[in-house]
This record gives sequence, structure tokens and C-alpha cells, in this order.
Amino acid sequence: MHSPHLFETTLKVRDYETDSQGIVNNANYLHYLEIARHDFCESRGTSFLAMHSMGLDPVVRRIEIDYLQSLTMGDTMRLTIDVERLGARFLFKQHIYNAATGAHVVKADVTVVVLEQGRLSRGDTVASLLSL
Amino acid sequence: MHSPHLFETTLKVRDYETDSQGIVNNANYLHYLEIARHDFCESRGTSFLAMHSMGLDPVVRRIEIDYLQSLTMGDTMRLTIDVERLGARFLFKQHIYNAATGAHVVKADVTVVVLEQGRLSRGDTVASLLSL
Amino acid sequence: MHSPHLFETTLKVRDYETDSQGIVNNANYLHYLEIARHDFCESRGTSFLAMHSMGLDPVVRRIEIDYLQSLTMGDTMRLTIDVERLGARFLFKQHIYNAATGAHVVKADVTVVVLEQGRLSRGDTVASLLSL
Amino acid sequence: MHSPHLFETTLKVRDYETDSQGIVNNANYLHYLEIARHDFCESRGTSFLAMHSMGLDPVVRRIEIDYLQSLTMGDTMRLTIDVERLGARFLFKQHIYNAATGAHVVKADVTVVVLEQGRLSRGDTVASLLSL
Repeated sequence: MHSPHLFETTLKVRDYETDSQGIVNNANYLHYLEIARHDFCESRGTSFLAMHSMGLDPVVRRIEIDYLQSLTMGDTMRLTIDVERLGARFLFKQHIYNAATGAHVVKADVTVVVLEQGRLSRGDTVASLLSL
Repeated sequence: MHSPHLFETTLKVRDYETDSQGIVNNANYLHYLEIARHDFCESRGTSFLAMHSMGLDPVVRRIEIDYLQSLTMGDTMRLTIDVERLGARFLFKQHIYNAATGAHVVKADVTVVVLEQGRLSRGDTVASLLSL
Repeated sequence: MHSPHLFETTLKVRDYETDSQGIVNNANYLHYLEIARHDFCESRGTSFLAMHSMGLDPVVRRIEIDYLQSLTMGDTMRLTIDVERLGARFLFKQHIYNAATGAHVVKADVTVVVLEQGRLSRGDTVASLLSL
Repeated sequence: MHSPHLFETTLKVRDYETDSQGIVNNANYLHYLEIARHDFCESRGTSFLAMHSMGLDPVVRRIEIDYLQSLTMGDTMRLTIDVERLGARFLFKQHIYNAATGAHVVKADVTVVVLEQGRLSRGDTVASLLSL
């Protein structure tokens, strides 16, 4: 199936990710978003580990996240990623949907910069590795 | 000591909260911010559990978080909270500082709404409980 | 492929599960073992949530776990499960292997009892649901 | 207050450590036990980080843990540590109690060995650092 997004993946809620209200704790959505970004890198033939060994370290500088709906134990989610380059920054526009109902769960804008040998770079090498 | 903030607390980084780069994983800062909000509630003589038993559920709707510096294993942090009411929303203006160096680690704006018996409310009961 | 085990599944290490030494933190293996047990239940057509709604709650009473090797970021693991019934107890004999190298990572004996309506039971209903 | 144990500390349950049943997830007790061991090291004037920088890495080889009671959101726990040396192994005998009720929550035997420059050692340097 063709997706209108740069990348899509799915994940399932793990029981220990829910809190005493039976819903996924807010912090875990940041884990889900990070996993999706890692999976995106692997879909492009690289990884954070591979980039790190080349002296390239993508670092999250800012996250804006809207919690629209909750996920609960047993739910499966669909995660989408699109990326915009804004100068030296990569803006990951990410969304999470409940895979069963289609409900929009989370909207997040994640700003990433790239350190090269520990120094802020323009990110061209990473952009090239990720075909962005 | 008098603080210029509504509330202050301290926390120490736990080893398992760091990732393979030896620095605290982004998601854990949301845990720290949440713990600070819980501690604030307790400083006002209530708790999320107590409010829940009264049918009051504060829910995070949006987080804007800037990652300015990293914390690493063994670090202690100072967390500050100030709160503004904007209509039915509570805006928690939170900061995290490295307790040893004073470095500004995280700046976060956390928007919270209050459900009463499961329905969106103006939050007046919670505001009163928290003396806001 | 036929497995000599009652159940097998695979999981991939997530970056935030590693600690400052770059290896998976000990506690996360308990998560992996739990996920494998949940997946086993689903392979038998039920789930902890479904059992809970029937008043059945499997509860871990004891774990013996040997850490033989470490997993690191990017590793994929193979998890196997076998089950023995010992009176009212279910003994889950679980193993984790590095999927790429075959190295034996973890050996764990997990003792589970079943509460029915909150009371210790002989577990016959759960055994039947899981075809044990 | 004099304790009959080698070391004692207290911790409070964090909301995100509970699962959908409102009780602390099994894996988190391993975190609590680890935090207690780290605090013990600091009470002796050293730390895992300091030992690591000296080429000394204590590594958990085996855990036997009995789950006797559950902790829930808001609970405070008391953790005790005693240590026995068995050849090259350090056996940490650890207990967790509900601080409010005194209920015995967890009993754990944690076997630790020490790597020196990456090789299994007799652990004499660590024993000396920890006054064991």
C-alpha cells in the first residue's frame, strides 16, 4: 500500500507502559516517536549506532506534543513521519493514530539538530544518508 | 530559603534513565516534570490519587519542551514550577536546572485541563484545592 | 519452522532500554519475559485483559533469573517459553537468546499463580484457556 | 536510629511505575533494588561511576526475587541491604517493606561479580572500597 507519508510503522502498547489509570503514560509517547524515527533510519539503510560510529549524533532540541486521545493496554498504533529541513534543523512532523479506530492520538513536532564530532553542523551528511 | 517560584523540588538521575550515550533519555524528563507536579500537589495537601477519588482528573493536553543541556548519571537536578490559569487550562511553566552547576537543562510549558466525572471542567475545584 | 518449545517470539532492543554502559539494564529483561508471556497468551486466543475481565488474574510470585550475556542497542533477541504445572503454580521456563549469534543471554524460571475474583485458585480455568 | 542491617534507605513509588492494575510492575522492583545498591555505595563514599572510572564494574549475575505483597501509587517503601561474600561473588540480601504498614513486599538475593578491566576478578578491590 502506498502511504502519503515519508514513513509509516506500527507498534503495540506494552502493559507496563500504562499507568494507574490504565492509559499510556505521557512520557511513553516520546519513546514511541523515538522508535519510529529509529525505524525510519533503518528503512533508509542506516541507524543511530552507525551514524554515531561516523561521528554523527542527531540530538532532539525541542518537542511540541499534543495529546488528543489516549491509548490503553492492548492497543496497536500507527505512526507516521514527515520531515522538513529548516536551515540546520530537521523538523520531524510525527503523528500517532489508533490502528483499530483511526482516532488521532498524538501530533508532535520534533526538532532535531546534528552534531558532527560533537559540534553543531548543517546536517548535510545525515540528510544525504537519509535521502532527505 | 525563600524561592521566587511557586514550588521547587530536587531529584537525582537514576542510572537506568540514561541511554547508550550515557545521557538521560528525552522521555525521562517528562517523568521528572510529572513527579515535580505530583510533589507540588502534595505540598498543597492533596494528590492525584486523592483528586481522582473525588472524580477530579488533571490531564496533560500539550507539552512544549526545550532540551538545552543534558543530564548524566549521578547528576542532581533542581525543578521549579509556576502556574498560570488561562480559561479552563492550567499552564505549568516548569524548568530543570543542574543542581551542581546551575546550568539550564530543560524549559517546559505543560498545559493541563481537568476532567470532573470524566467531563471537561473549568477546573475551579482543583484550583481551589491547589490554592491557585 | 517447527520449534521444540511451547512458544517462541522475537523482540528488538530499544535504545532507551540500555543504560550508561550501553547494555540493556537488568530490569528490562523482566519486561521482555513479560511481553513473551503476553504474546503466548495471545497465541492461544486470550489476553491478560480478557482474563482480567473474567475475574482471572495471573500474578508473578517468584522469579529466578540468570544473566549469562548482555544485549546491546540494535540487538534482536529470540525468546522461548515452556510451562510446567506444579500444583496451583505455573512454572514458566523462559530463555532469551541473541538472535544473530545464538548466544544464551538469559535463563529464567517464573512462578505464576492465578487469582480468581481476587482469591488464590488452582488455576484450572486459566490452564484450560491456555490449553496447558 | 540504629539499624540491624548493613544499609537502609527509603523510596517512594512513582505513578508511572504502576501498571494497568494500579500496582507496581514487577520489573520496577529490580530498579528499586539497584537504586538501593547504588545508594549503599554512595554511603560508603564511592559510586558505580567512580568504580567504572577505575576499571571496576560490578555486574549482576543472578537474581532470585519473591513477590510477597504489592506496592501501589503513593506508597513509600523501606529497603534493607546485607552482603555476604562467597568466593568471588557478592550476595546482596535485599528486602523491601511497605514503610507505612511494615508489610514484607519483596525478598531478593542478588548475586554480583566484579569485572576488573573487563575480566572476572575476586572482587577484593571493590570489597575494600565498600568496607565489606
